[in-house]
Amino acid sequence: MTVRSLKSRPRLTRIDSNLMSDSPSTPAGLLSSITNPGDLKRLTAEQLTLLAAEIRDFLVAKVSRTGGHLGPNLGVVEMTLAMHRVFDSPRDKILFDTGHQSYVHKIVTGRQDGFDLLRQRGGLTGYPSRAESEHDLIENSHASTALSYADGLAKAFALRGEDRHVVAVVGDGALTGGMCWEALNNIAATRNRLVIVVNDNGRSYAPTIGGLADHLSTLRLNPGYEKVLDLVKDALGQTPLVGKPVFEVLHAVKKGIKDAVSPQPMFEDLGLKYIGPVDGHDQQAMESALRRAKGFNAPVIVHAVTRKGYGYRPAEQDEADCLHGPGAFDPQTGALTAKPSLKWTAVFAEELVRIADERLDVVGITAAMAEPTGIAELARKYPERTYDVGIAEQHAATSAAGLAMGGLHPVVAVYATFLNRAFDQVLLDVAMHRLPVTFVLDRAGITGPDGPSHYGMWDMSVFGVVPGLRIAAPRDAATLREELREAVAVEDGPTIVRFPTGSVAPDTPAIRRVGQVDVLREGERPDILLVAVGSFVGLALEAAERITEQGYGVTVVDPRWVRPVPIELTGLAAQHRAVVTLEDGVRAGGVGDAVASALRDAGVSTPLRDFGVPVGFHPHGTRAEILIELGLTSQDVAREVTEFVSRLAEPEVRV
Amino acid sequence: MTVRSLKSRPRLTRIDSNLMSDSPSTPAGLLSSITNPGDLKRLTAEQLTLLAAEIRDFLVAKVSRTGGHLGPNLGVVEMTLAMHRVFDSPRDKILFDTGHQSYVHKIVTGRQDGFDLLRQRGGLTGYPSRAESEHDLIENSHASTALSYADGLAKAFALRGEDRHVVAVVGDGALTGGMCWEALNNIAATRNRLVIVVNDNGRSYAPTIGGLADHLSTLRLNPGYEKVLDLVKDALGQTPLVGKPVFEVLHAVKKGIKDAVSPQPMFEDLGLKYIGPVDGHDQQAMESALRRAKGFNAPVIVHAVTRKGYGYRPAEQDEADCLHGPGAFDPQTGALTAKPSLKWTAVFAEELVRIADERLDVVGITAAMAEPTGIAELARKYPERTYDVGIAEQHAATSAAGLAMGGLHPVVAVYATFLNRAFDQVLLDVAMHRLPVTFVLDRAGITGPDGPSHYGMWDMSVFGVVPGLRIAAPRDAATLREELREAVAVEDGPTIVRFPTGSVAPDTPAIRRVGQVDVLREGERPDILLVAVGSFVGLALEAAERITEQGYGVTVVDPRWVRPVPIELTGLAAQHRAVVTLEDGVRAGGVGDAVASALRDAGVSTPLRDFGVPVGFHPHGTRAEILIELGLTSQDVAREVTEFVSRLAEPEVRV
Repeated sequence: MTVRSLKSRPRLTRIDSNLMSDSPSTPAGLLSSITNPGDLKRLTAEQLTLLAAEIRDFLVAKVSRTGGHLGPNLGVVEMTLAMHRVFDSPRDKILFDTGHQSYVHKIVTGRQDGFDLLRQRGGLTGYPSRAESEHDLIENSHASTALSYADGLAKAFALRGEDRHVVAVVGDGALTGGMCWEALNNIAATRNRLVIVVNDNGRSYAPTIGGLADHLSTLRLNPGYEKVLDLVKDALGQTPLVGKPVFEVLHAVKKGIKDAVSPQPMFEDLGLKYIGPVDGHDQQAMESALRRAKGFNAPVIVHAVTRKGYGYRPAEQDEADCLHGPGAFDPQTGALTAKPSLKWTAVFAEELVRIADERLDVVGITAAMAEPTGIAELARKYPERTYDVGIAEQHAATSAAGLAMGGLHPVVAVYATFLNRAFDQVLLDVAMHRLPVTFVLDRAGITGPDGPSHYGMWDMSVFGVVPGLRIAAPRDAATLREELREAVAVEDGPTIVRFPTGSVAPDTPAIRRVGQVDVLREGERPDILLVAVGSFVGLALEAAERITEQGYGVTVVDPRWVRPVPIELTGLAAQHRAVVTLEDGVRAGGVGDAVASALRDAGVSTPLRDFGVPVGFHPHGTRAEILIELGLTSQDVAREVTEFVSRLAEPEVRV
Repeated sequence: MTVRSLKSRPRLTRIDSNLMSDSPSTPAGLLSSITNPGDLKRLTAEQLTLLAAEIRDFLVAKVSRTGGHLGPNLGVVEMTLAMHRVFDSPRDKILFDTGHQSYVHKIVTGRQDGFDLLRQRGGLTGYPSRAESEHDLIENSHASTALSYADGLAKAFALRGEDRHVVAVVGDGALTGGMCWEALNNIAATRNRLVIVVNDNGRSYAPTIGGLADHLSTLRLNPGYEKVLDLVKDALGQTPLVGKPVFEVLHAVKKGIKDAVSPQPMFEDLGLKYIGPVDGHDQQAMESALRRAKGFNAPVIVHAVTRKGYGYRPAEQDEADCLHGPGAFDPQTGALTAKPSLKWTAVFAEELVRIADERLDVVGITAAMAEPTGIAELARKYPERTYDVGIAEQHAATSAAGLAMGGLHPVVAVYATFLNRAFDQVLLDVAMHRLPVTFVLDRAGITGPDGPSHYGMWDMSVFGVVPGLRIAAPRDAATLREELREAVAVEDGPTIVRFPTGSVAPDTPAIRRVGQVDVLREGERPDILLVAVGSFVGLALEAAERITEQGYGVTVVDPRWVRPVPIELTGLAAQHRAVVTLEDGVRAGGVGDAVASALRDAGVSTPLRDFGVPVGFHPHGTRAEILIELGLTSQDVAREVTEFVSRLAEPEVRV
């Protein structure tokens, strides 16, 4: 049960160039014989070692072509094999927190063929999917949820008298999220059959931070309580017999430890059994620990120490974590093959550092995503002014409120989808106190290959109800820089600056500015006012060309700040025959609804048609594919707008 | 530093009938001489004891007249005095989690006079208020936030080189919330001057549950690590000298404890200094612990054990926690003076038990609010089918998802304002998996005396974006029972049933039902369709009478289910000259916006006017006072609707 040195162990695998030139859908060797978890139970220890190597080769070969989550999956090969050998899925339930570590699980549950189309439209999802397999349960890929599902499932099985086990795999990074604490606190009060496998690789995206990380590190580096007692016994054995008092002292100390202080790590303070640490790359040790855990009729934690990217040197040595979830890469070197382009994130990161150069009160916060959100640039230049709070968006928002109360201006950079975790905190902790905090939402709107739980399409609706909160949606690099500076200049309340994933859009200069609204295109006649939000400006300009070809005049404006609705929009709307809104966010309660409401309140009766993302959970694919599927192309918009305008009251305007 | 027996200590105070008959604005004795925290620093130990007694008399006398939070404040008298003597507010920052325990703080910071109008319109707020005092910081009364603010404040002071202390008071109940975990994990990684006072009374509203509660209880009952070592030393002193080996063994064991296992409670596993447990009603012990904590140049936890309601027997013996936050009561007996009436909560509680009688798969979840939400009724009859998860709304939602995955139908009963804590979990964990979970939102809409952070007015907007989620807003007891049954009959996704605080509205039977829409009043002419949501049905019917007097025909309908918008509404709207919506929720993204959107999508051009709560943070007061202030009376609505309709295109319809 002790951890063997990971560093001294030989590589289990390397890239097999023969395998890589095979047809991807016919894996060689043992792997091809594994079509369901039952097949694993027949393998010998030697075969399992070979299988693990084949799986790593398979992962590197496949993901190097399609992109996907590499490092996390290389780290859980033996763990996944062990879980499927010890437990009986789908009767027993195996749950993956942040499901991107489920590729090995997919490989051994009959989905090897799907990896050629991993994360591609119509192909295998990058996360568990109930549509794909009866072995999958959790489709949400936000971190720190699995223990709560597990608690519910275990309670349901207990109440229904079903003799099943629930196994939840959770990373040490995810344990920094408050949900895990809430779940552990509840799980500890039960006697249900629930095994929590802590996959401790010392990092979530970035190295895991905080007191918990230090505690886990301590556990990792020591052999545990039992071993201490062994040492004491050994020491006693080597000394002369000193009679009863020694044993009395020993007994008193041991009893004192047991009764008065907490002899076991934190988890046991909560009343949870704890097994570990276990070398997560030692197949036999993992199985042994899991079998022991299975034997308890109570919740138990198995603390497995793993290495992210294990067995593939470029991923193991990947300090910047580029191979956490890369695009396509060269399997020999790990070098990404995509051409570099200027990303929205890079523009934000650069401008934030410039602002921080000028303003000493500006500080940065990230929730375990320093590199992906660009906050790392600030951290490199001003480490003392950058805070990584762990996977803890609630704390990110409310500690930002505290920083602002203390006279600073925090910039909280998170993915748009993750700020939903902190809605209540943004509403009551930040906005109700009218505190100047800037939230920068990366990956806003339609995202793509990561599937429905990564869509950043909710923010403009949900945060649109927050009193005093202003939301900017820049359309290009220039407006991102400009609106970010406007945001950090706000002193009496929170702001959001939101932009999409990927390469930044080409600059679209304004023809003129009306109040805070940029006019990007003037219509020849005041037929249609097209209000385009952020990344949909390009789509709007294309659609405007098409509509103009049908004989209508189209003015395109970018409101820049979409909440509150700029007063200038109502004036412009009153001058046109129709208003059309276009937003990269969910329609319900979005900018279209808000503009419509503003027009009603102003007594402007100009008819309105709003385009946005339909209410729904939309599948994975490229952004372009999804836009086509949702009817958000310039052809679609032009056709629908033309039909809409043609039905309006004054047909004589039509040429 | 050890806990004296609370039970053996004499009452510090009793109701002083002379004091109670004094003019409330001129407190007798010492208390009247305390106008700011500096006054406390001059008092002797004897005077402090007297002052604590006077404060308790003052609290009971005042709160028995106005209503308010009694039990929590009786429990923190000595603690609050000690904090203000040891620290220097407002230079040092004293933060109260769930600010309802700040009355004593208000009393000693110059606000004694305000208690006659406590929680009343224009009077003293029931929570900290920055408008009232420079000693107040956090106005949000949701639990578990204070440590995050404190972390931010302490970081800001450290970065700015300001030599101040931050003191945060947090209850043991609030520690079950995940935010506290996120904050502790971050605080432990700092060396800032931050004192966390854990006010451990063993209960939040209900007794605190879970592994943490057990752990705190263990700490409470034992004298701590140091004492164990003392015992060992004592034992050694009483035995014959046995030479070096004993000391070696002792040393090895002690070192083993220090190095290999965690010698201190959970908090120290995170790297936090821990002082305690301290008797929170021992003024000298509290001050001594706080002075010691102040001396650390690092975060430190002071674990104070208190008793809710301490010093006032009816509150101490209040198992059902009626005196946590009562209305007016008899100060001699603690009996509530308000006449009982049938509450929305009671109707829900009764119907839920009936449903549970019939359906074994129905289970209940509460987040530390079993009595206030009515789930206690279910718990009394079916304890094994009721789960109290602590102040942990995120876990409530996602463990409900797990229960539903396991074949059960969970009913999660929370206050409307608190479900905001679990938006992401309702969206992705419950709705994305299309799981049948019913959320019952009590205290929805405008609430009243608890101020802005208790308004339950966000739900219909925020949860309105959740795909597949259905929201019902019953108008009376009969429809609450009916719609609750419809909700638990839904098998393919989540539902919300939301109702307001207070006495249930009189039954308003439908004249007829169109699809799922109830017609409550038929207009003589098809002028105005008035769509009334839930508790605003009464307001709508009154307004309809007034509008009718102006010569218009008004039809009033209750859609019953407001999300998704019933298709029948568009048909009804098309038959009328104008549509008016009335909802007890924030306007932005609310039912009005949703109906307007549905009309646009259906090509129905009937003009719409929507009434709801304006976007903003609205102050405390009675519900009736707030409705007047917000322009949501039948007079206001009738006047505005009449004006609206009179401006429409066809004035000839007007009589």
